Amino acid sequence: MEAKEVLEKVKKGEISIEDAESFFRREPFEELGYAKLDTHRKIRSGFAEVIFCSGKSDEHLLEIFKKLYQKEGEVLGTRASKDQYELIHKECQEAVYDPLSRIIKIEKKDKIRTGKIAVCTAGTADIPVAEEAAQTAEYFGSNVERIYDVGVSGLHRLLAKLEVIQKANCVIAAAGMEGAMASVLGGLVDKPVIAVPTSVGYGANMNGIAALLTMINSCANGVAVVNIDNGYGAGYMATQINRLAVKAEI
Amino acid sequence: MEAKEVLEKVKKGEISIEDAESFFRREPFEELGYAKLDTHRKIRSGFAEVIFCSGKSDEHLLEIFKKLYQKEGEVLGTRASKDQYELIHKECQEAVYDPLSRIIKIEKKDKIRTGKIAVCTAGTADIPVAEEAAQTAEYFGSNVERIYDVGVSGLHRLLAKLEVIQKANCVIAAAGMEGAMASVLGGLVDKPVIAVPTSVGYGANMNGIAALLTMINSCANGVAVVNIDNGYGAGYMATQINRLAVKAEI
Amino acid sequence: MEAKEVLEKVKKGEISIEDAESFFRREPFEELGYAKLDTHRKIRSGFAEVIFCSGKSDEHLLEIFKKLYQKEGEVLGTRASKDQYELIHKECQEAVYDPLSRIIKIEKKDKIRTGKIAVCTAGTADIPVAEEAAQTAEYFGSNVERIYDVGVSGLHRLLAKLEVIQKANCVIAAAGMEGAMASVLGGLVDKPVIAVPTSVGYGANMNGIAALLTMINSCANGVAVVNIDNGYGAGYMATQINRLAVKAEI
Amino acid sequence: MEAKEVLEKVKKGEISIEDAESFFRREPFEELGYAKLDTHRKIRSGFAEVIFCSGKSDEHLLEIFKKLYQKEGEVLGTRASKDQYELIHKECQEAVYDPLSRIIKIEKKDKIRTGKIAVCTAGTADIPVAEEAAQTAEYFGSNVERIYDVGVSGLHRLLAKLEVIQKANCVIAAAGMEGAMASVLGGLVDKPVIAVPTSVGYGANMNGIAALLTMINSCANGVAVVNIDNGYGAGYMATQINRLAVKAEI
Amino acid sequence: MEAKEVLEKVKKGEISIEDAESFFRREPFEELGYAKLDTHRKIRSGFAEVIFCSGKSDEHLLEIFKKLYQKEGEVLGTRASKDQYELIHKECQEAVYDPLSRIIKIEKKDKIRTGKIAVCTAGTADIPVAEEAAQTAEYFGSNVERIYDVGVSGLHRLLAKLEVIQKANCVIAAAGMEGAMASVLGGLVDKPVIAVPTSVGYGANMNGIAALLTMINSCANGVAVVNIDNGYGAGYMATQINRLAVKAEI
Amino acid sequence: MEAKEVLEKVKKGEISIEDAESFFRREPFEELGYAKLDTHRKIRSGFAEVIFCSGKSDEHLLEIFKKLYQKEGEVLGTRASKDQYELIHKECQEAVYDPLSRIIKIEKKDKIRTGKIAVCTAGTADIPVAEEAAQTAEYFGSNVERIYDVGVSGLHRLLAKLEVIQKANCVIAAAGMEGAMASVLGGLVDKPVIAVPTSVGYGANMNGIAALLTMINSCANGVAVVNIDNGYGAGYMATQINRLAVKAEI
Amino acid sequence: MEAKEVLEKVKKGEISIEDAESFFRREPFEELGYAKLDTHRKIRSGFAEVIFCSGKSDEHLLEIFKKLYQKEGEVLGTRASKDQYELIHKECQEAVYDPLSRIIKIEKKDKIRTGKIAVCTAGTADIPVAEEAAQTAEYFGSNVERIYDVGVSGLHRLLAKLEVIQKANCVIAAAGMEGAMASVLGGLVDKPVIAVPTSVGYGANMNGIAALLTMINSCANGVAVVNIDNGYGAGYMATQINRLAVKAEI
Amino acid sequence: MEAKEVLEKVKKGEISIEDAESFFRREPFEELGYAKLDTHRKIRSGFAEVIFCSGKSDEHLLEIFKKLYQKEGEVLGTRASKDQYELIHKECQEAVYDPLSRIIKIEKKDKIRTGKIAVCTAGTADIPVAEEAAQTAEYFGSNVERIYDVGVSGLHRLLAKLEVIQKANCVIAAAGMEGAMASVLGGLVDKPVIAVPTSVGYGANMNGIAALLTMINSCANGVAVVNIDNGYGAGYMATQINRLAVKAEI
Repeated sequence: MEAKEVLEKVKKGEISIEDAESFFRREPFEELGYAKLDTHRKIRSGFAEVIFCSGKSDEHLLEIFKKLYQKEGEVLGTRASKDQYELIHKECQEAVYDPLSRIIKIEKKDKIRTGKIAVCTAGTADIPVAEEAAQTAEYFGSNVERIYDVGVSGLHRLLAKLEVIQKANCVIAAAGMEGAMASVLGGLVDKPVIAVPTSVGYGANMNGIAALLTMINSCANGVAVVNIDNGYGAGYMATQINRLAVKAEI
Repeated sequence: MEAKEVLEKVKKGEISIEDAESFFRREPFEELGYAKLDTHRKIRSGFAEVIFCSGKSDEHLLEIFKKLYQKEGEVLGTRASKDQYELIHKECQEAVYDPLSRIIKIEKKDKIRTGKIAVCTAGTADIPVAEEAAQTAEYFGSNVERIYDVGVSGLHRLLAKLEVIQKANCVIAAAGMEGAMASVLGGLVDKPVIAVPTSVGYGANMNGIAALLTMINSCANGVAVVNIDNGYGAGYMATQINRLAVKAEI
Repeated sequence: MEAKEVLEKVKKGEISIEDAESFFRREPFEELGYAKLDTHRKIRSGFAEVIFCSGKSDEHLLEIFKKLYQKEGEVLGTRASKDQYELIHKECQEAVYDPLSRIIKIEKKDKIRTGKIAVCTAGTADIPVAEEAAQTAEYFGSNVERIYDVGVSGLHRLLAKLEVIQKANCVIAAAGMEGAMASVLGGLVDKPVIAVPTSVGYGANMNGIAALLTMINSCANGVAVVNIDNGYGAGYMATQINRLAVKAEI
Repeated sequence: MEAKEVLEKVKKGEISIEDAESFFRREPFEELGYAKLDTHRKIRSGFAEVIFCSGKSDEHLLEIFKKLYQKEGEVLGTRASKDQYELIHKECQEAVYDPLSRIIKIEKKDKIRTGKIAVCTAGTADIPVAEEAAQTAEYFGSNVERIYDVGVSGLHRLLAKLEVIQKANCVIAAAGMEGAMASVLGGLVDKPVIAVPTSVGYGANMNGIAALLTMINSCANGVAVVNIDNGYGAGYMATQINRLAVKAEI
Repeated sequence: MEAKEVLEKVKKGEISIEDAESFFRREPFEELGYAKLDTHRKIRSGFAEVIFCSGKSDEHLLEIFKKLYQKEGEVLGTRASKDQYELIHKECQEAVYDPLSRIIKIEKKDKIRTGKIAVCTAGTADIPVAEEAAQTAEYFGSNVERIYDVGVSGLHRLLAKLEVIQKANCVIAAAGMEGAMASVLGGLVDKPVIAVPTSVGYGANMNGIAALLTMINSCANGVAVVNIDNGYGAGYMATQINRLAVKAEI
Repeated sequence: MEAKEVLEKVKKGEISIEDAESFFRREPFEELGYAKLDTHRKIRSGFAEVIFCSGKSDEHLLEIFKKLYQKEGEVLGTRASKDQYELIHKECQEAVYDPLSRIIKIEKKDKIRTGKIAVCTAGTADIPVAEEAAQTAEYFGSNVERIYDVGVSGLHRLLAKLEVIQKANCVIAAAGMEGAMASVLGGLVDKPVIAVPTSVGYGANMNGIAALLTMINSCANGVAVVNIDNGYGAGYMATQINRLAVKAEI
Repeated sequence: MEAKEVLEKVKKGEISIEDAESFFRREPFEELGYAKLDTHRKIRSGFAEVIFCSGKSDEHLLEIFKKLYQKEGEVLGTRASKDQYELIHKECQEAVYDPLSRIIKIEKKDKIRTGKIAVCTAGTADIPVAEEAAQTAEYFGSNVERIYDVGVSGLHRLLAKLEVIQKANCVIAAAGMEGAMASVLGGLVDKPVIAVPTSVGYGANMNGIAALLTMINSCANGVAVVNIDNGYGAGYMATQINRLAVKAEI
Repeated sequence: MEAKEVLEKVKKGEISIEDAESFFRREPFEELGYAKLDTHRKIRSGFAEVIFCSGKSDEHLLEIFKKLYQKEGEVLGTRASKDQYELIHKECQEAVYDPLSRIIKIEKKDKIRTGKIAVCTAGTADIPVAEEAAQTAEYFGSNVERIYDVGVSGLHRLLAKLEVIQKANCVIAAAGMEGAMASVLGGLVDKPVIAVPTSVGYGANMNGIAALLTMINSCANGVAVVNIDNGYGAGYMATQINRLAVKAEI
């Protein structure tokens, strides 16, 4: 029984006010079931559900992928293996796969992108994480400017690209090793910097913990940090910010 | 020798093109001296310099405070002790001090605040950090809604305030102990959540490290993290986001 | 506006079904306000609110203490300093203070205690934490058997007390240093063991982290762990378990 | 020589009091041999021995499995690989295997389950750990309610299931990533919550350490923690609590 | 009722064999109460009880000190403050105090020391820990050779003392900072080396954790490690070893 | 040029005293070449060189194995794979291999073992480490008593074996998980306990770090710790102690 | 538009001084594009670019290798797999590969090496890291003295080689396990010691973290540390120091 | 008996060659006593002994200070408190004290400084550590260029000073918080960079551990790291490098 039904029955006197009261004391939680709230959320924010493919069984992955595709007309999967892609591709031939970012997706053709997000990497090894961020942001409707391999060991490369970075509404800084690029960017731009430590490095890097600590302790303002290798999270939050800014530009 | 001079000498043929080239290859760095860039920055972003009072000598603190006051007509100092306040108050009687947030400031009277930032705390012990964030955001021109003591051990308190939180352009979540509130907020709002772990807690909390890890590993999207107790940093970034949104609303 | 009113207005046609729907989509959260849920909780579980005194301002502490005393007729404060006690004692002369456990309380005279909880410590230095646990459990209506200084460096002491420990419905094991007592107890009793690492120790103990790790990795079954020095939490959970068992004995 | 014999010899004067004294100073330890205590334990608590299969040699595993089966008429093995199952299945065709929980077992047909334990997971990836807990609890005679995928990033899912969770005698909360669900549950139910951090996550999750810290620092009362991925331990302790409660219900 | 009494009653037929059996099944644990077992231990090993003074209340400390003195005719207290010494000295004027090692003691005058333990320190700041070790060993009857300030930054100092170190039955190596001396000693002597990391150092030393890790990872054989600053523990174990060796020399 | 030559030249006046002085300031280091000191060491201590096989190239391993065999008439290799054994076995058919301890060896037939070392494990999974310790001690001439699977979760098993453990000159305690057995042993025996944390465990065990911390923080005296899984190191040091004691017994 | 062009246009009056000023305020960063600065750097310092092969795609690796070879006439690749070597070797038959150091290179034939760097290892397992350091230094023109397997467990080996080590301009100390050799070297030589912790070890070594901490806390002066296994970084910095010294010797 | 004496006696035939041989086999170590080797070291390297004042007793400090002053005619003490200064000043009125660097010293008047070391700090709070480095380097005869407050949050400040930094023979980079400046400097200069993490920061900085990790993981070449706050160590090593370079310039 849905909220509307209950209310209509109250109106018609088919159920007592006491019964309806008891329904609503509990039901709104129940009624806000998985799909429903989700739809509300989608309408309000434009973020449809996304699939974290890694670790999912073939059966589950395929089912979720097809269900979301039916519902939304497009679908995005992150951390997908090549095998998972082939599994899906058999049944959904529109699906495309990018081995670098490990993203599998079917995207609506007529998507208009707005605003601007700058996605920077310190080295070339950080690009997979950056691509996850960039393609997530694009999927959710943001324009993305990629500025790769501009880490602080060759500062001129970063400075040379400063103008284009400064024009973005939000900057994503993906860096491994010591992750110093995030602080340098924080000092050079006026927009929020989403720092993504990557697990690139060795030894005392401890799979990205060192870069994470660097970024959390940034001496520059306007830098906040997401989990190691969490390109998707960075792209998501950058899109939230970009959307806030884009409305202003219209 | 300034850039203009060099260019005038080039025009007059007083120096060779080679010498001028060599000058410019290096000079822009030198010419972008402290005060200049800073002014540029202020004009562009509206973030004047702020004083981190803790650890500064009395002499330095007083000098910097007065210099910034002269330059900007207002000034904000964070992490100030009561003694530091009394020192400054003797010479700048307009200075006011909030012992909770440890902020000392002189603020312009006619400041108009725009947009909306929600500042939430899990417990009452997190309020000093939250106030540093809130007052920073207010100083930089944002409207702030304070929602304190809404941690997850009594979820109804948070849910009761959800509507007002959802209306903000950006949410700051200050929480110590296990810091779970940030994830819950991330799942309930569509705007960016700046999570601030606080050092509130004991034992395996390790002065905020546990809360920091919780927040960095958040299962909710749209959550990014600043350093433990870094209320200023959270207020700063929230203001960046709020400004982007405000332009849109106009 | 309460749920009942809304439903009555729906019945009378005074508000549309759409408006009522929107009300219920949100209201249940708002309706579950602080006091209400709390009362419900108290009635159901018998756990009234408790004050964590440490870090509270004098003004706040005094106000909360008096308010809870009025409401409940008794009140328990943990981690209270002697100064805080004196502050409260001036206005509430019934308040008593135990400097060992740092508990301040006013307790109803006619309290009947039921069941049995065994509170064990490895050494004498763990007693303050154990007393916080024991007195919390007693305040919430459990009988407590104290078995102190029975750590594994002199195993016979523990074995000599085994019979009395085995009779309890739940065992609290407070231990610092390497915290091995929790595992030994887990192997000797059939009831749940709540292990409380204490910050007693030095060097590689790291203020209780070593004992925490020992207990979390316990090779014995039926051992679960709370935070370092969290006597209150252990006493609380032991009481939950004791109550479940007591109902059975009646 | 058994205790009885010694005492009879004392009575008959066949050995001196000194010799008997020396015997008893040591013997009780020796007399409490492996089998005896174990049997006593089983009779008293109903927890038969269980096999931790991982790492056991084929020969040992098979022998232990068959021996326990003979002795108890049923047997439970945890962390079993598919290969180990096939090994056992050849000789014990009644053995069944669940690849999700990695449990292999032969269970008595006429087992009556009592009480109620709620087993919750934050995400779908935590289900293997939860199933180890649930099936352990069922094997030891508890009724189990499974409530999966109710993590805090979509709070409505948890709230919708609250009523069923609140009816259990004990709640198991299995969560990876930041593990915030345990705190939220602790605030919503009145029964003990056994929190099981899982190794689900990446980056700063450090294979479950982040979730463990979150749970240990829980701001909610009534939450205690077992080792990462230790579903068996959680199911065991929940059963201890459930049994205490069940006796009360009879 | 003591074991002897029970046995006598068995002999006289005053209690049944069944009752006696039941007594011994449990009693030996109970009968092996604190004082008794301790005496047995003392007789066998020669290690009387020692007082860890730090954190003890004045009342308890004084009582324990006097009781042990009465019982043993001598007494050793470690980690004692000057105030604690003065407290004890008022009532036990024979007590002497060494502010360096923080040991307070009354020692039997006619004590004969045997064997040889070498106590080495890397720097002068490690001497307090070394003295706790040395005086503990001397109190328990070992001869001690002190070789201080022979750390690896000036290797010649250690090599110059090698001959005397090699003659000891056991070597204690107390070192802070990076603690490399333990490995060097392990490579140069044939006797067991008890390594004591000290909390001397700063920065990444982390109060002795760095030295502890160095010593645990020693590339030299024959090195085992006790807790940071645990001079007492090192002196105790060295005495165990020295005693084993001394018996051989007689 | 050797010391003797220099001195003879000094006597003959062939070199100046200054030159000789300069020679001796440096030479003693040079003169203590590899083979010499080594031989001296063997003669004095009876510990021949041992091969750590893991990571060695086939060629190097074979060469070293054969060279040591020639020199000593026996040889011991630790951490050897089955492949390495097969490699060696082809050329040295006397070589035997134990897959449990991963030790490969050729041992003199007429070896007389003396004294007694007790090697205990908490569980069956710790046996490989214990066997490395036991076989090392046996290779170096100690009698070894193996007491396996006597961890604290079933304390009676340990107590039942106490008498045999107490008779050893040195006890090796190999335990993973929480490693509590070392403390319990330390409290029950009067001889030195060499604690070996093993990497057995999961989750917060962190590959043996938890057990290591437990053992380092032991509340019992007479416990010292070697590196995780370092059975060889424990067997070596136990032999040093056993030899000291054995001399006494003769 | 290049700097020169702008300046020529200023001279000719084709653009205003204001426009030129604005160009130079930004341009020098842009004009300092990748290749250019790099060349400048090469000329000044003699350090050509080097390829970190690990993780590079075949296509990228091959392209970069060939491009650098063309540009410099020689090329150095570190952390190369055998497969990567075979890939390159097919197209560049001059390329040689060292499986120990995992370096692939083509080196100019007429290279003159100057100065002297001593590369020491504690054990044989540290040699791969040391060879990366040594061959890097040689590639960049330094003479290298290799002194391997001179760790502190057999101190005489190090002392025997002291004279040759003391003659170098810079010492590289590569050590795993506890890494004590770096401190010992720091105390014995007067030249800078570059300490390279290696990941050789097990247990509490934590893949080199223990050795890193040892080296950072060195009690000897003149020791600085690079990342775990970072032989390339050590060889690079040692060459910088050697070059400074070599100029002096000429 | 000194080496010279022995040699003279050999020459005169007063002792046999065998006796002399035995003397030298051992003596050089013994003869190289504390003072002697030190002098040798001083002659060779020019680094006299320095006093680490912190933690020294007044008596010891005063004695060492005066002894070194007598021997060297100058003396340097680090980490000195104001009280320690006053103690020394009473007896050595030439002693001067700098409260910022906490250095107390008496320096020879005619000291000539050579070469150039650049000492950079990220913020003003890092200056105490930098001054310890700078004054150490100056005391040991290096010219020092101080470039303070040039951290990466305002990159133009660093770039503006680049020319003067690039002219130094060695760069010291003292930085707290995230310590990114070291990497940026490493990318901009061709000389060795000695990175000194400082304990400046809060929260996840963990008293300098974060900065230490940043620097150890530096993506730039030519960066090596000393302990947190170890200004003395940085100044010492920079002087070693500067001296090597200076000889070249002469």
